[in-house]
Amino acid sequence: MGNKRAIGLIDSGVGGLTVLKEALKQLPNENLIYLGDTARCPYGPRPAEQVIAFTRQMTRFLIQKEIKLLVIACNTATAVALDIIRQEIQIPVVGVILPGTRAAVKATNNYKIGVIGTEGTIKSASYQKALQSKTPNITVHSLACPKFAPLVESNQFSSPVAKKVVAETLLPLQYSGMDTLILGCTHYPLLRPIIQNIVGSNVHLIDSGAETVGEVSVLLDYFAIANSSDNKTPNYEFYTTGSTKMFDEIANEWLNDIFVQSKHVDLEGN
Amino acid sequence: MGNKRAIGLIDSGVGGLTVLKEALKQLPNENLIYLGDTARCPYGPRPAEQVIAFTRQMTRFLIQKEIKLLVIACNTATAVALDIIRQEIQIPVVGVILPGTRAAVKATNNYKIGVIGTEGTIKSASYQKALQSKTPNITVHSLACPKFAPLVESNQFSSPVAKKVVAETLLPLQYSGMDTLILGCTHYPLLRPIIQNIVGSNVHLIDSGAETVGEVSVLLDYFAIANSSDNKTPNYEFYTTGSTKMFDEIANEWLNDIFVQSKHVDLEGN
Repeated sequence: MGNKRAIGLIDSGVGGLTVLKEALKQLPNENLIYLGDTARCPYGPRPAEQVIAFTRQMTRFLIQKEIKLLVIACNTATAVALDIIRQEIQIPVVGVILPGTRAAVKATNNYKIGVIGTEGTIKSASYQKALQSKTPNITVHSLACPKFAPLVESNQFSSPVAKKVVAETLLPLQYSGMDTLILGCTHYPLLRPIIQNIVGSNVHLIDSGAETVGEVSVLLDYFAIANSSDNKTPNYEFYTTGSTKMFDEIANEWLNDIFVQSKHVDLEGN
Repeated sequence: MGNKRAIGLIDSGVGGLTVLKEALKQLPNENLIYLGDTARCPYGPRPAEQVIAFTRQMTRFLIQKEIKLLVIACNTATAVALDIIRQEIQIPVVGVILPGTRAAVKATNNYKIGVIGTEGTIKSASYQKALQSKTPNITVHSLACPKFAPLVESNQFSSPVAKKVVAETLLPLQYSGMDTLILGCTHYPLLRPIIQNIVGSNVHLIDSGAETVGEVSVLLDYFAIANSSDNKTPNYEFYTTGSTKMFDEIANEWLNDIFVQSKHVDLEGN
């Protein structure tokens, strides 16, 4: 039996693929539809109203595909649009900020936590508010890293340039004493080896996207809408508003287990 | 603001304290009420009908205390009573088996997973069914460890006897090739150092109880019933059907951060 409708994932670009990669592992029975708004990425510097409008367009596209659950696999969009989208559609909607927050509270021992993200995410102070509402005695060091997502979108996430940019950008966190750092943008796990190298192996890195799949799994079970294990050949669909060539290059480098051939979609009319 | 009603936790004895310990860390704003049915522990060898009846009695006791969410912090009771209790009460009910299952699927690389638990839990095959429904290609090695929970209840969990019993009991898993072992009984994390030593440091131990708190946190947020951070002095209540002296000894050894003084309760009339 099982519920065969797909789970939908949306992101400003390829970042949400880090969430999808984890879904392939943790939820191998599920059909997945991914939509990356690559043409309008990054969302980080955009005004909240615009990010909300774009998120609504992506949501409408996936609702037409009859998804059973929506993952806003983008921190910037989660920060400003999660509560709004939840009120507007009937299916469960999961964001990436609370799962990252929970995992950080679980992991920290000294209650000093770093958060890196886009300007939009950091400006919203969403992680700071969520962390402090969960654990009053926590100290949060937040830092916007506007150059990180574009490095990933341009497929330079393993380059020497990336190493230099990451090292320079993270300097302000050098003496923070943090034992846990939230990768508060779904693009950042592609830079993970470089980030870990800069902050040192003692700092626990939290992949907010990967943690999100845990929340998806909880809700699938709680609402009894998981697919069953007789779905031997799950269906994966990928859409991008930008170049399918660039999208497929990054997706196929990042996702080893499946072959990605994305389709172009135009959201402006949605 | 926030929802000030307590979260209720029930167990056959002191095992669920491993879940409560994790709740103290991850959910420091929440008021907690714990009930251990120490007088009738262990549940493992009991017939399912009896475990269901006892679980109903514990649930009724906590419902009278107006809890907002119930955690069945006992694998044996989760295996046979979770679905029944969920249908009988209005508040969210969380068990320990699915959270342990999710964490194991997330952790494993070779898809060979060991499960240890009471006779009741292993006989129910609940973990095996849950694991295989989530990941069809998984191999599950299940083993009943009837001597483990009594070792913990009699406060011998660090003794030389414990080392000997654990080593002998786990022998059948020696050549399983598992890379992940689910501690499928909430008593077992108290034996964790001994178990880790026997199975080797390469085997990832999953504390099903600790993972359960993650599910509780998801549901508190999803249903907007979390307490707020202005709850500076959360309230913790402990009840046992057995000796309060023995309960307090184990609880205070295991929970460093708070002082436990339990009250005796008689459930037979419930």
